[in-house]
Amino acid sequence: MSKLLIVGTVAFDAIETPFGKTDKILGGAATYIGLSASHFNVSSTIVSVVGDDFPQEHIDLLSSKNIDLSSLEVVDGGKTFFWSGRYHNDMNTRDTLITELNVLETFQPKVSDDFKDAEVVMLGNLHPLVQLSVIEQMTTKPKLIVLDTMNFWMEAPFLEDLKKVITKVDVITINDEEARLLSGEYSLVKAAKVISEMGPKYVVIKKGEHGALIFNEDQEIFFAPALPLEEVFDPTGAGDTFAGGFTGYLAATEDYSFENMKTAIIHGSNLASFCVEKFGTERMQTLNKEEIRKRLMQFKSLTQFEIDLK
Amino acid sequence: MSKLLIVGTVAFDAIETPFGKTDKILGGAATYIGLSASHFNVSSTIVSVVGDDFPQEHIDLLSSKNIDLSSLEVVDGGKTFFWSGRYHNDMNTRDTLITELNVLETFQPKVSDDFKDAEVVMLGNLHPLVQLSVIEQMTTKPKLIVLDTMNFWMEAPFLEDLKKVITKVDVITINDEEARLLSGEYSLVKAAKVISEMGPKYVVIKKGEHGALIFNEDQEIFFAPALPLEEVFDPTGAGDTFAGGFTGYLAATEDYSFENMKTAIIHGSNLASFCVEKFGTERMQTLNKEEIRKRLMQFKSLTQFEIDLK
Repeated sequence: MSKLLIVGTVAFDAIETPFGKTDKILGGAATYIGLSASHFNVSSTIVSVVGDDFPQEHIDLLSSKNIDLSSLEVVDGGKTFFWSGRYHNDMNTRDTLITELNVLETFQPKVSDDFKDAEVVMLGNLHPLVQLSVIEQMTTKPKLIVLDTMNFWMEAPFLEDLKKVITKVDVITINDEEARLLSGEYSLVKAAKVISEMGPKYVVIKKGEHGALIFNEDQEIFFAPALPLEEVFDPTGAGDTFAGGFTGYLAATEDYSFENMKTAIIHGSNLASFCVEKFGTERMQTLNKEEIRKRLMQFKSLTQFEIDLK
Repeated sequence: MSKLLIVGTVAFDAIETPFGKTDKILGGAATYIGLSASHFNVSSTIVSVVGDDFPQEHIDLLSSKNIDLSSLEVVDGGKTFFWSGRYHNDMNTRDTLITELNVLETFQPKVSDDFKDAEVVMLGNLHPLVQLSVIEQMTTKPKLIVLDTMNFWMEAPFLEDLKKVITKVDVITINDEEARLLSGEYSLVKAAKVISEMGPKYVVIKKGEHGALIFNEDQEIFFAPALPLEEVFDPTGAGDTFAGGFTGYLAATEDYSFENMKTAIIHGSNLASFCVEKFGTERMQTLNKEEIRKRLMQFKSLTQFEIDLK
């Protein structure tokens, strides 16, 4: 079984959407990635940090999904990273209300020996130097390194560090606005080209409700729509759930070709379509195989067509 | 060969985009629809009106594409409909600078006897009562009536007339904002349901650079992306070109099933991807079979994937 190493935040989130608001609930990029990847036949670990305020029930939940937590550091007397945000009516934009880094501020990731030869490394959104440190701890070159990041790291003083990480990864996943910011190009086709020249062979551009694009080095493109839903309840974690499905599927199939990445993108989009149906990780906690399979069939009928190219 | 009846404007457009501006060039919904549908094996006619300022070269161009112009009325001493607009930098929004209705103001469409039994009727964006008058002139019930319209007709005093037309069509094509306006629903899934209950079995929602959705009565959905392009030069006519490809393909294949509509949507999107590459109708005037076929292959690799649903 392939190993999937996930680094990212494990956090408390407090979320407001037009549909309601939550108290501090389980959140964090690594949490969403891990829950999503758990639907594939992989051995995954989360490298992250929490405070001793992090409840046992959350630990138990992640463990019950067969996620290794030997690299989840618990800081005595420390407080878990906390983020609070409010979504606007269109659900595409949000304001951050509170960011308390807490134990994340001094986080030094430590990859356990068991995972230093992981086939796939998923670098969730974090300080670029933390991401870099994980890559440097690998003793065997991974088959695939996937980087997620955000606009915050694309400005001084972080941009140079981010660029260092970018040279070392195979795939980068960012959203459309971030792709424009990082590349200086408005056209996403041009943006992907510029970003690919920074290092990654594959560039994934996430467009939220408008789906996701993946570009390879030859500027071939594959597009997966987001499933049209009656209601998006809470978009938090959708991008990380997408990344978890993408990397989980690739690690499980051990096929890192562009053709297989197309299928991986569909799996990522499929899982993300569940994530947004309830607050936080709620929907992902109960999601089962049959629900996933049925929705993959919807994705198929949503996108597949017959055409005569004679 | 199936007959395709197209009603819509034949016009002069003056266009400004971030890439440049044009003088008065050939435009109009029926023009774009006709040029696009001419790539399929159909016998099509344009029902419209122009003034005697409309140059012979434009007439010759449309005739050279085998478009019947016996129902294109030329008003002696009249001036052709003129529209001028300026696109914003994102190319998704535009300001109308000038609208001179001219001969369109008193336009009474007259369908020639030869086309009163057309299998497919494409109602381009026009006053709803003009669209209604065309439907009423048909002596044989068409296999498919497709309605395009816009936000302008969704307010008083036109809305009631528009609703009358909507009850009589099989397919409506509108953009996402118009779907929201017409239905009062933000979610496009809910909007399509509301609009379908007004009459049309099929609702096509165009999202510009974000592709197009088609919903059937059972709320099954198909999605076609727009081809990601390095540059969108001029979006004018893209929606009409899409509609021309959609109806042209359906009329040529004489198969009005939802499955075949999926392929028709792809043909429409494919043709629209050419339209935006140059100003006005310029690209559509020279477009050939081989270019179309090659780009359909790009659409296929953009959207098709293998998935195991065991």
